[in-house]
Amino acid sequence: MYTYEYLENFTQEFFKKLGCNDADARISTDVFLEAELRGFSSHGVIRIRDYFNLWKAGRVNVNPNIKVIHETPSTSVVDGDRGIGMVVAAKSMQIAMDKAEKVGTGWVTSHNSNHYGIAGYYPSMALKKDMIGFSMTNANPLVAPTFSLSRMLGTNPIAVGFPTKNRLPFLADFATTPVANGKLSVAAKKGLKIPLGFVQDAEGNPTDEPGILKEGGSMLPLGVDPEHSNYKGYILSSMVDIFSGVLSGANFGPFVPPFVGFLPPSDKKVGEGTGHFFGAMRIDAFRPAEEFKEKMDEWIDIMKSAKLAPGQDEVLIPGELEYRNTQKLRKEGIPVIPQVVEEIKEIADYFGMDFEVRV
Amino acid sequence: MYTYEYLENFTQEFFKKLGCNDADARISTDVFLEAELRGFSSHGVIRIRDYFNLWKAGRVNVNPNIKVIHETPSTSVVDGDRGIGMVVAAKSMQIAMDKAEKVGTGWVTSHNSNHYGIAGYYPSMALKKDMIGFSMTNANPLVAPTFSLSRMLGTNPIAVGFPTKNRLPFLADFATTPVANGKLSVAAKKGLKIPLGFVQDAEGNPTDEPGILKEGGSMLPLGVDPEHSNYKGYILSSMVDIFSGVLSGANFGPFVPPFVGFLPPSDKKVGEGTGHFFGAMRIDAFRPAEEFKEKMDEWIDIMKSAKLAPGQDEVLIPGELEYRNTQKLRKEGIPVIPQVVEEIKEIADYFGMDFEVRV
Repeated sequence: MYTYEYLENFTQEFFKKLGCNDADARISTDVFLEAELRGFSSHGVIRIRDYFNLWKAGRVNVNPNIKVIHETPSTSVVDGDRGIGMVVAAKSMQIAMDKAEKVGTGWVTSHNSNHYGIAGYYPSMALKKDMIGFSMTNANPLVAPTFSLSRMLGTNPIAVGFPTKNRLPFLADFATTPVANGKLSVAAKKGLKIPLGFVQDAEGNPTDEPGILKEGGSMLPLGVDPEHSNYKGYILSSMVDIFSGVLSGANFGPFVPPFVGFLPPSDKKVGEGTGHFFGAMRIDAFRPAEEFKEKMDEWIDIMKSAKLAPGQDEVLIPGELEYRNTQKLRKEGIPVIPQVVEEIKEIADYFGMDFEVRV
Repeated sequence: MYTYEYLENFTQEFFKKLGCNDADARISTDVFLEAELRGFSSHGVIRIRDYFNLWKAGRVNVNPNIKVIHETPSTSVVDGDRGIGMVVAAKSMQIAMDKAEKVGTGWVTSHNSNHYGIAGYYPSMALKKDMIGFSMTNANPLVAPTFSLSRMLGTNPIAVGFPTKNRLPFLADFATTPVANGKLSVAAKKGLKIPLGFVQDAEGNPTDEPGILKEGGSMLPLGVDPEHSNYKGYILSSMVDIFSGVLSGANFGPFVPPFVGFLPPSDKKVGEGTGHFFGAMRIDAFRPAEEFKEKMDEWIDIMKSAKLAPGQDEVLIPGELEYRNTQKLRKEGIPVIPQVVEEIKEIADYFGMDFEVRV
C-alpha cells in the first residue's frame, strides 16, 4: 500500500527523468494518479513501464512542440509532435475550453499523440468551469466489427461530464466494449474464465478464455451479439475512431499504434500517431448554469428514486463509484500489485531513484 | 403497395388539412417518407394517426412561432412553441448548420417540441454541405436504469453522419436499447416471442413476452445485463436525455410526454414538451473536406476488408442497409400494413380526402 503523495512524488520524478519539464511531469502524474484513485488501476502507475519502454524505443518525444495547425473560432486541430498522450490531451482540452469561453463551445481533434491515460480526466477539467466536457481516443485494434473476425478497432472509450449543484457530477468514462481489455489481462493472469459475450476465438466461436486474443481471437463490441444489436457498439467505436483518427489526421482502424513499447507499430501508416477528440460546452451558452445544475440534481434524484431490482442496493449515477473509491484510497492508501511494484522498482534502479517495495 | 409519390401527396395534404403551411407540410412529409424508404416504417406513415390524435387533443400547434431564445456564436436554444417535431427539428438543424458555416460548428438544443420522426433525417441535411451532423431526442419513458425496475428513460436515439467521397455516407441512427419499441409492438401483435435481454417483467425477471410493458415491465438498456455492462446503454440514454431535455428546458426522464394522443401527458412537468439536440461540424473547420472524404472511403474499405464470421456475407457500414432499402422501395413501391391503411383511410374520410385502400 502506498500513500497518494508517495506515488505522486515518484511518478513526477520518473517523468522528469525521461526529460519532461515540471509542468508536463505534473500533468502526466496527475492523470495516472487520478486513474488509481478512481479505481482504474489498469491506467495508473502500471503505465509507468509502458511510457518507459516507449521512451527507450524512441517512440515518444518528451519535449514536444505541441501546436495548433488549423483552426476556426470553435475548432482546432492539434499536432502533438509525438508527445506524451496526457500532455497533448490536457493542452488540447484547455484549447477547447478557451474556445468555449469565447464562442460557447470548443472542439479539438489531435493527432501525432500517444496513450492519454483515462478518458474521464479531461471532462473533469471542464466541470470545474461550469462546462460540459467530452473526450474520446482511438486505441490499438482489438475489436472485430459485427459479423467479422478481424481486429479492426480499439476499445475506443467515450467520456462525458455534466456539472451539478449539490450532487456529485455526472461523469461517465466507458469503453465501447462490454469489458475493458485490462480486465481480460487480469483474468488471464489469474487463470480465471470470463463470461461469454466478451470475446470470440479466431473462428468466431463464443469462448470464456480471457487469453484468446493471443491466439487470434478478438473482443466483441458493446451489445454482446448481433441479435442484441452489438452493431451499436461497433458504431460507437467507429465514431470514436473517426473523430479521433480520420478527422485529426492520426492513424485509424487497425493502424493505430500499440501503446506498449515491446510491440512494433504497423508498417503501414494512414496518419500520424494516435488520435484524440475533445469538446467543451459552456452551460450558460444554453441556459443559466445555476438553473441547469439544479435541474441536474433533480434529474439525479429522479433516477435514484427508481424501484430497485431484487438484491440491488441503489441506482448508480456515472462517476459515483469512482468518487467513493477516491475517498477510500485517499484515506487508506493505494494498493499496487506485486508485479507492477517490481517493474517500477527496476525502472527506479535504472535511473538510480529510490522506490520502496511494499506489499 | 403504394408509390412514393402517392404517399407523399397524401401525407402533404394531410398536414395541410391540420393547418400547416406548405413548407411545414413538406418537411413533415419528407421525414415520414424518408423513414419509409430507409425501412423504419415504425416512424413512417403510421405516425399520421399519432399526429392526427395529438392535433385532435389540442396538443400540437400547427402554426408555431419557433424562435431562438438564447444564443452564442456556436449555440442556440430553440423554443418549438408546441410545433410538429419534424418542423421544429428541421429549423433547429438549419440553425446549427448556419452557425457551423460561420464559426466552424453549431449546437442547438430545442424544447417545447413533439416526436420528430427518424433521428437520422437531420444529419442527412448536414452531409449535403460537407458537414458532420448529429441529432438526438428524448422520448417517453420505457427503459429502466441498470439495477432498477422503473421506466425512467426513453429509447432515446442517437444519429450521426459523416460524409464520404465515392462510398455511401456513414449514417448511423440507433436507439440506445437492444431493440426499438416498434419491434416489440409488432412481435406482440403477431403473437411472437422475443429473445431474452430485450425486456424484463415488473419484478425484474427475464422474459420473452413482447407485451410485458403493458404489465409493468420495462425495456433494458443496450448491453443486455449488468454483467455485459448495460450501464453503458443506460449512460447513453441518459446523455441523450440531458442534452435534449435538461440542457434545453424540455421535460426529461419519466416526464417526457407520450407522443400518442390517447395517452395523457404526466401531471408533473419538469420542463416544456419534448426536447431534441442537434449538431453540425464543418469538415473544413478541421481538415480539407476532400482529404477527409478520401480518408473516410479508405476507412470504409478497411472495415469491409475484415475477415467474415462463418455464414456472414459482408461487414456493413451504418446507413448501407437503409440505402439499399431506399433503392428497392423507390422502384418497387412502399408496402403499408393493412391496419395502418385502415387508420389512414379513416383519417382521410374525416377530412373528406381521397385515399385508396391497397393491399
